[in-house]
Amino acid sequence: MKVTKKKVAENRSALLLAAARLFRERGIDGVGVDEICKKAGLSHGALYAQFPSKEALAAEAFAFAFKRGFERIAATNDGHPVTLTDYLDYYVSADQRDHLERSCPTSASAGEIARQDTMVSERFTEGFGQLVAVIEAGLNTSPITAERRQRALAMMAAMMGGLAASRAVAKANPKLSDEILLAIRQVVGQIGGEDLQVQDARVQARRHTTKR
Amino acid sequence: MKVTKKKVAENRSALLLAAARLFRERGIDGVGVDEICKKAGLSHGALYAQFPSKEALAAEAFAFAFKRGFERIAATNDGHPVTLTDYLDYYVSADQRDHLERSCPTSASAGEIARQDTMVSERFTEGFGQLVAVIEAGLNTSPITAERRQRALAMMAAMMGGLAASRAVAKANPKLSDEILLAIRQVVGQIGGEDLQVQDARVQARRHTTKR
Repeated sequence: MKVTKKKVAENRSALLLAAARLFRERGIDGVGVDEICKKAGLSHGALYAQFPSKEALAAEAFAFAFKRGFERIAATNDGHPVTLTDYLDYYVSADQRDHLERSCPTSASAGEIARQDTMVSERFTEGFGQLVAVIEAGLNTSPITAERRQRALAMMAAMMGGLAASRAVAKANPKLSDEILLAIRQVVGQIGGEDLQVQDARVQARRHTTKR
Repeated sequence: MKVTKKKVAENRSALLLAAARLFRERGIDGVGVDEICKKAGLSHGALYAQFPSKEALAAEAFAFAFKRGFERIAATNDGHPVTLTDYLDYYVSADQRDHLERSCPTSASAGEIARQDTMVSERFTEGFGQLVAVIEAGLNTSPITAERRQRALAMMAAMMGGLAASRAVAKANPKLSDEILLAIRQVVGQIGGEDLQVQDARVQARRHTTKR
């Protein structure tokens, strides 16, 4: 019985890992359960023993990917409190843009969530709410007079939309793709009241690293 | 010969109409060519006579939907020059959120474009560029000191991401969905230097109309 429980947990992890990666890389509707099973090295039976439907798997895979991303931001800061600047640097980056398969699912899957069922919407809403709360907590005084919560919502939206746009234009116009990331990073930092000296230094550093 | 040319043009319109609607509603990877032919009332032969691949159809359907939306904004303003406020009102609205099938494809399909080929990326880049140019032309002085072009890019990104987020949370939390739209409308207007009195009036009016 003990071995079985362990095996069940292992199967669950393998399925979530495979699904979270494939759904981000190719879209929820772009991947079938066959492929997820194959990537996880498991049978359909093993999948349906844990997830009653593809929608249920998509919802849990979203939460799984979100949690890992959220933990990764904290980890990259060596235990120091994560600042607004850390979040913006992590989220609005060429690395996030260029690696759909391991990027934040809030941006990788946002456009598709509307076409999925309530379960998936619930997991998205949880993740989105956590990110907005973290952004709001890190806000400084800003020239934008909208309420703090509104600023945080708009910053999150600009980051999500900015990543989507930078990915969408990348094949046709890589230079524009970089320009979008830089613009988002700068304007979102200003809405957040980020120290302008910090921001300028980051943007300068970025000009050297995002060249392709 | 004349009749044939006319028929070819009719078929093309029917296919683009069907594809543009279905791709926005259900996602490019969520719809097969079978379904598009069926909706257009045409055979596979008729489709492939005009579009060599599904990707080619997706690229043209994007351009077709974009052009119609772009014309519609101008039309709703009774021939008066379209202002920044008109654009923001049109784009960041419950109507756009709730009707994927006839919404601006820049927001309906943004997240999926990265997974399509270069042809689709090219059409997206054209539409995105046109919208950003219109926004930039309508900018006023704003407390955000980033360059005008950067502000326009960030505003466009916030509108795209805001619509995606408001749609993604709608099933789980309709109230949050409305809150996101309001926040985006307000903050994006401020980045654009929109007259605050105009903005307040619009936001007040909206508080009464977006209730569900």
